[in-house]
Amino acid sequence: MNKVVVTFLPDDKKVVVEKGTNLLSAALSAHIHLNSSCGGDGVCGKCRVFVKTGAVHAEPSGRIRPEERRIGAHLACQTLVESDCVVEIPPESRLDMSVLSKEELALRLRGIYAPSEDVQEAARPVREDFAFQPLVEKFYIQLPAPDFNDKLSDLERVERAVQEKIGDVPLHTGLANLRRLGELLRTSSWNVTVTVAAKGPAFEILAIEPQDTSEKNFGLVFDIGTTTITGQLVDLKKKEILGTKATYNRQATFGSDIITRIIYAQAPDGLEKLHHAVVDVLNEMTEALTDECRVDLNDVTCACVAGNTTMIHLLLRIDPSHIRKEPYVPTANFISGLKAAEAGLKINPHGALYCVPGVSSYVGGDISAGVLSCGLFRSADLQLLIDIGTNGEIVLGNAEWLISCAASAGPAFEGSGMKSGLRAVKGAIQGVSVDRKSLDVTYTTIGGDTPRGLCGSGYIDLVTQLLGAGVVDKNGKLNRNKTSKRLRPGDAGYEFVVVFADEKGLAEDIVLTDADLDNFKRAKAAIYSAVSLLIRHMGLSVQDIRNIFIAGGFGTSLNVESAVATGLIPDLPRDKYVFVGNSSLAGAREYLFSRRAAGACDKIAANITYFELSTDAAYMDEYMAALFFPHTDMTRFPSVKYEKDEGPVIPSALKPRPCL
Amino acid sequence: MNKVVVTFLPDDKKVVVEKGTNLLSAALSAHIHLNSSCGGDGVCGKCRVFVKTGAVHAEPSGRIRPEERRIGAHLACQTLVESDCVVEIPPESRLDMSVLSKEELALRLRGIYAPSEDVQEAARPVREDFAFQPLVEKFYIQLPAPDFNDKLSDLERVERAVQEKIGDVPLHTGLANLRRLGELLRTSSWNVTVTVAAKGPAFEILAIEPQDTSEKNFGLVFDIGTTTITGQLVDLKKKEILGTKATYNRQATFGSDIITRIIYAQAPDGLEKLHHAVVDVLNEMTEALTDECRVDLNDVTCACVAGNTTMIHLLLRIDPSHIRKEPYVPTANFISGLKAAEAGLKINPHGALYCVPGVSSYVGGDISAGVLSCGLFRSADLQLLIDIGTNGEIVLGNAEWLISCAASAGPAFEGSGMKSGLRAVKGAIQGVSVDRKSLDVTYTTIGGDTPRGLCGSGYIDLVTQLLGAGVVDKNGKLNRNKTSKRLRPGDAGYEFVVVFADEKGLAEDIVLTDADLDNFKRAKAAIYSAVSLLIRHMGLSVQDIRNIFIAGGFGTSLNVESAVATGLIPDLPRDKYVFVGNSSLAGAREYLFSRRAAGACDKIAANITYFELSTDAAYMDEYMAALFFPHTDMTRFPSVKYEKDEGPVIPSALKPRPCL
Repeated sequence: MNKVVVTFLPDDKKVVVEKGTNLLSAALSAHIHLNSSCGGDGVCGKCRVFVKTGAVHAEPSGRIRPEERRIGAHLACQTLVESDCVVEIPPESRLDMSVLSKEELALRLRGIYAPSEDVQEAARPVREDFAFQPLVEKFYIQLPAPDFNDKLSDLERVERAVQEKIGDVPLHTGLANLRRLGELLRTSSWNVTVTVAAKGPAFEILAIEPQDTSEKNFGLVFDIGTTTITGQLVDLKKKEILGTKATYNRQATFGSDIITRIIYAQAPDGLEKLHHAVVDVLNEMTEALTDECRVDLNDVTCACVAGNTTMIHLLLRIDPSHIRKEPYVPTANFISGLKAAEAGLKINPHGALYCVPGVSSYVGGDISAGVLSCGLFRSADLQLLIDIGTNGEIVLGNAEWLISCAASAGPAFEGSGMKSGLRAVKGAIQGVSVDRKSLDVTYTTIGGDTPRGLCGSGYIDLVTQLLGAGVVDKNGKLNRNKTSKRLRPGDAGYEFVVVFADEKGLAEDIVLTDADLDNFKRAKAAIYSAVSLLIRHMGLSVQDIRNIFIAGGFGTSLNVESAVATGLIPDLPRDKYVFVGNSSLAGAREYLFSRRAAGACDKIAANITYFELSTDAAYMDEYMAALFFPHTDMTRFPSVKYEKDEGPVIPSALKPRPCL
Repeated sequence: MNKVVVTFLPDDKKVVVEKGTNLLSAALSAHIHLNSSCGGDGVCGKCRVFVKTGAVHAEPSGRIRPEERRIGAHLACQTLVESDCVVEIPPESRLDMSVLSKEELALRLRGIYAPSEDVQEAARPVREDFAFQPLVEKFYIQLPAPDFNDKLSDLERVERAVQEKIGDVPLHTGLANLRRLGELLRTSSWNVTVTVAAKGPAFEILAIEPQDTSEKNFGLVFDIGTTTITGQLVDLKKKEILGTKATYNRQATFGSDIITRIIYAQAPDGLEKLHHAVVDVLNEMTEALTDECRVDLNDVTCACVAGNTTMIHLLLRIDPSHIRKEPYVPTANFISGLKAAEAGLKINPHGALYCVPGVSSYVGGDISAGVLSCGLFRSADLQLLIDIGTNGEIVLGNAEWLISCAASAGPAFEGSGMKSGLRAVKGAIQGVSVDRKSLDVTYTTIGGDTPRGLCGSGYIDLVTQLLGAGVVDKNGKLNRNKTSKRLRPGDAGYEFVVVFADEKGLAEDIVLTDADLDNFKRAKAAIYSAVSLLIRHMGLSVQDIRNIFIAGGFGTSLNVESAVATGLIPDLPRDKYVFVGNSSLAGAREYLFSRRAAGACDKIAANITYFELSTDAAYMDEYMAALFFPHTDMTRFPSVKYEKDEGPVIPSALKPRPCL
């Protein structure tokens, strides 16, 4: 008898498993999803459960306190069942939306399983130097009926009309469209709308519909980040953005960074689960966007996806394992000719899927898209792009050459892994000012809504203000000698209260903890040191750079002054900085909006050189020196002065510069 | 109660159907296939059944004699069930191989459901003016493993190696191949075989296999005729023909000509059934060929199909209905980018399917292939191609211009619809000589085997010889005044016995009937008048033509002297005639063997003009005048003289001229 029965409460779900199965797997078999951001390694402590009856074997874990252990608390991932047992799952360990109340949902993880929310992007004028000519176009064509003098076949008749619109290009039409073409043309009196998609050097006729539906041509643009997924519905006829939404990447339940997920992909069904996690998010986002804009899913003819190389592999269910093995070679950077359905995207069944091509295992299509969007590839002057996400990617160059590198920052700037973190959605605190004496906090939220948490730009402001007020020291520790109702010991070390829950009717206080500060410091150090080393590697100095584009999911604002003050970015004249928001999303949109832009972007991806930081001995030195606010070497930050109780002056309403 | 139970004997199969269902449909529901070459119109009389008990409503039919009717005989297609009933199906009405004995099978229809048989093609040297470069090639590539200096992605690494072989062409690789590429390359130590297929202006990587399998690259070539399907297995590495087989097109059970089948395709599930009928034949032929040649189906990477336009539509399950409606426009002549699996062909799951492009509804890819194979498109001199099948297609022209027309001949020359007809397989009588006095018959069979029936060339010889002997008159009637044991009244009018069954241990005598002669006469008249009118239409005379290619499934021989004597082809110096056998199959093979040949053939199809005979008033006059042996206007056939008992001298062993 090697089988045992595990009963999960409060659902009373029973599942039969092999003796020795861990409780995380057993729960999955019972279709109960537990938090598990470390991928089941016993590190994150989020899969805590209570064993009520029955024998289990559990590895000891620092994540379970002795008094918890006495009442049966275990980490599900580290606990093997030995006999029939009954296990209670507390709400905070559970990830399954369907069995949670709305209230519980809102409390936990701030959104991993919550629906996607509207985001506003930094205002970016749509680049006009590429002709608007979407990769998928709909043409209304009124065909002459055949007669004995014009006996072209139905297909060639359609193709002739399409070629009159887009030139004498090779066309291909799938069998499904051919099978009823004859009837369709005749019942529609030879007036049809043809959907044509660019596919490499050729074009494919995706659909042929009766009458004029050419006004209804919509596309989706996605930026798939390790932590955050942002989606946009666009009108491909009117060149309009109809809506933008963001949510956390649900793959986070299998690990918070790329490496953990690649490892998880090697587990049985791991790749499958990671694939579905991201596709489910894309499909839910698609449904939300199309519902709100009253767009029929059949009229969504294409999607364009930009993401880091691992995200694209997982989206397409391509084994990513070699991305993390030397010499770090992905299966593919350029993947063409895809159908959206092949990736599981639920749009028009014949809809096309475009993946913005990547550069290497750690510089993906999101960065090619960013370079496209910021225009680095066409500038005579030297420019720099810093894309701040869970990974920080840096591109340096001009019209002659482009070089890139990548650093693992962690998701702090996306509000993930932070006690009160939130991505840049409505209610996220995005700008903060702290009174140096009273430590009173004033803040602005995205959309002016009730505060729900802090997003990246909010943290950057907050840390800067607290440095100025002496509440945080240069090592990134909260000052325990300071006396304030806002400073207190918390569950996980010392914490500073930004917003008291009862002031705003929140479920819990919005705080900054010592652990948050540590995450923040390591994230900013990773990015600064990568920027610094890349410039040095090219034998240049920061002064040689004309413009620095800062990209990332910071919403509509980022206080450059604060970013310099924390040491996230070099101390340069502020007018060199341009905050460009989500440049990956903007680039993917340009890609979909213009065949020429797509062609330019393909060349960008092919031409960017990749510089491997991890094999450069100087990187660790640079990184260690940057683990300080703003930096160990203060001569690098001459404009930043932390006198006691005298922080840098931060204009509270500093507006980001509009992008070029 | 509108449901009734029909019980079919001898199987004792019961089926519940709606009252008013006809017995043909009811039998189909019981998975019993009846003969029905007219498509259920009550014309062919082949679906005769006996109603044993129960009430039916039957339209009277001349196909059922009064004495048969008295014992319950009905045409299944014309008989509606009114109550529960019991119906007996005689063996000759049944088409279902699985429930028939071997003997019954052999007797009936001579092969529609019999397995495919080997055929020998007229010897045709493979044209050397096109470089051998198959549409699908396998390349063994030994890749350098990636290192930090060569970090190309796996896919780009493979593509770089392929482009070194075939040039810097656009390449596409499907997701299925990408999904395990990383693992495949590493477990095979970077030594793989890549299968690359030409797809329009680009190329597709169909498969990537470990180690060197490049020697195993095979293709299939099919000529899909209305009556006969011929298939060939070729070695795409060694440029060799491994085997050739032919069988009847199983669609014949739904109608013997194109028009009947197009009508049948409009019936519920009609298109589906016609599609499966042809695909089943192709798959069985494929299995037979690969079994015999010990070729793994996975190593069959492509198929190239030539057929008339209706056959291609039915193969691809494209609605063919507009082919028979004015102005006779097909859904498509050029269909590219297909996978064999899309058509239901069971070869390598990623295998490519090429359809040789057609010209119009009634001049298909079989004719483009024929023009390619005969070289009309590159000749300075005027040449003519006559392809004799169930339809006769004619192409006239040279390197400057090409014009075509089509005439419906019926399947007589393919041995179908003739009492003792047989396609050109082993045992088919292909050459005949008749002693003018004794009327003794000497003959040659394909392969020297025991005679089983007459193929097209045998009929042409036989009719010519009987004309010479005065057994057949110029109107095509058997001479009832002639006395011979070989001349006698038969089931369907008078008949001439070619081979007595007991002489050769046959199940029945091999005969020529008045009805056969009528079929023959109409077939040859259709072809001759089309040739004649097309030449006249161009303001030319037959004397202007340098060479005339005669194509058709006649096996290895066709006696041109006899063909002239019957009036099938014009009376010209015999050295102008070149018998080329199945030029459609040969052309399809050239298409598959050479990217350049395929390109040339695509141009041929695009450039051939189509001349519509049916709208030309002169055609019916020409046709009526040709319903005579050899012709009403004897001045057109000066070399043919039918003195009483003095036919044209036919050298019995006249060899066909080898093709150019």
